[in-house]
Amino acid sequence: MNYTQAEPGHYYAVGVGPGAPDLLTLRAVRLIETADVVIAPRSRVAHKSVSRQIIADYLNDRQEVIEHVYAMERDTEKTYSSWRDIAGLVASRCEADKSVVQVTLGDPLIYSTSCYLIDCLQKHLERDRIHVVPGISAFQATASVFHEVLALQEDRMILMPATDIDVVEHAMEHCETLVLYKCGKRVKQLAELLDRKGLHNRAALACYIEQEDRQFLTHDLMEAAKGEHGYLATVIVRVRNKAWEE
Amino acid sequence: MNYTQAEPGHYYAVGVGPGAPDLLTLRAVRLIETADVVIAPRSRVAHKSVSRQIIADYLNDRQEVIEHVYAMERDTEKTYSSWRDIAGLVASRCEADKSVVQVTLGDPLIYSTSCYLIDCLQKHLERDRIHVVPGISAFQATASVFHEVLALQEDRMILMPATDIDVVEHAMEHCETLVLYKCGKRVKQLAELLDRKGLHNRAALACYIEQEDRQFLTHDLMEAAKGEHGYLATVIVRVRNKAWEE
Repeated sequence: MNYTQAEPGHYYAVGVGPGAPDLLTLRAVRLIETADVVIAPRSRVAHKSVSRQIIADYLNDRQEVIEHVYAMERDTEKTYSSWRDIAGLVASRCEADKSVVQVTLGDPLIYSTSCYLIDCLQKHLERDRIHVVPGISAFQATASVFHEVLALQEDRMILMPATDIDVVEHAMEHCETLVLYKCGKRVKQLAELLDRKGLHNRAALACYIEQEDRQFLTHDLMEAAKGEHGYLATVIVRVRNKAWEE
Repeated sequence: MNYTQAEPGHYYAVGVGPGAPDLLTLRAVRLIETADVVIAPRSRVAHKSVSRQIIADYLNDRQEVIEHVYAMERDTEKTYSSWRDIAGLVASRCEADKSVVQVTLGDPLIYSTSCYLIDCLQKHLERDRIHVVPGISAFQATASVFHEVLALQEDRMILMPATDIDVVEHAMEHCETLVLYKCGKRVKQLAELLDRKGLHNRAALACYIEQEDRQFLTHDLMEAAKGEHGYLATVIVRVRNKAWEE
């Protein structure tokens, strides 16, 4: 597959990484620069689209740029209904021989709204007209900043949301590294759990990783629990020593 | 942190992604282009360094390029002894005010030899002279090619090596998506396990993902088990239906 430019009639789900414009891949940049239509999602609560800000330097005047405002609700039917509309829009542009890029924070297949759009598009576009370009996910950028090994040798890494603390505690039994997404509202509960497990000095938290002015980093979850943290906060826990450390 | 160029006296562990030169991030490219010294690891059994091939277009004549041949042995002491030598070399270049980039396939903190080097370097360099630049890991590129959702909503994803099939079977109880690395020698055992679990039609295998001529993709592990597959083969299994699919 040649990804030097966006092809007419094709759709690309493009991961743009966690925030820094230089964490895009070359492939992502070339596709964004050459697309006829660029769709940037924005959550209903946000003032502006973070993914659009990240790619601002790669856009140009002849492009149609669509900010798609989506609801972040725990209602799969509502979510799908919203994405079906966008899928129809993407399909109409592709049928008119336009190339369409949808940008998404992080990686399109890791807790990303792109998953819904790709799914809805199956009905409209042939498989070989749908493309996914991977992007750096927040947990990778977080590990990089902290120099935290995610997995080596026989290590198991679990990646999951911190929605249910009981499920998080259960997961700790089955991995060496635990990566938690969507920690914003759970930092206090997480800090208490880590304390109880004797793991309070084995965690790292990042908010708005690689988003220049907003980035917040700490090893002290108990202290962090006193503040307000973004929905997208990431926590990495070294649950146990690894074979290569002993 | 400004990563527009490699700074004198600094070391950078740089992920270069799974194989395609356009899956490097802009940050990775700029650091490689401006580094005084570039270290590319090569396993003892390989004829050439894959990571060096990926970055060939970004190298220039004034750079010192070092191919570091390492043993892939299950002997942590031997492994560390080899990396301690490289750490000494990196330190000597940094002390002479050179900038040093070590490139690594995929992401430097996910099953990567960079982990050893970063660890050994703690003794030689101050923390703020050691940098890690994340890269696209093979499982992300594999998911992208197959359009396979890795995680959404409450999904848990486990990433682990396929070394021990009993541990793999155990992991299936605790995730929605299972990502297995280093599957090359385990494809037959994996195919049998998936068959026994009724999951034979829910797996995808990739070898040499994004390595142009060598890439091999299949959903049929039983068939794939008849061939010889590279050590770095990746398998993604959708272990169970996810909330948003039901």
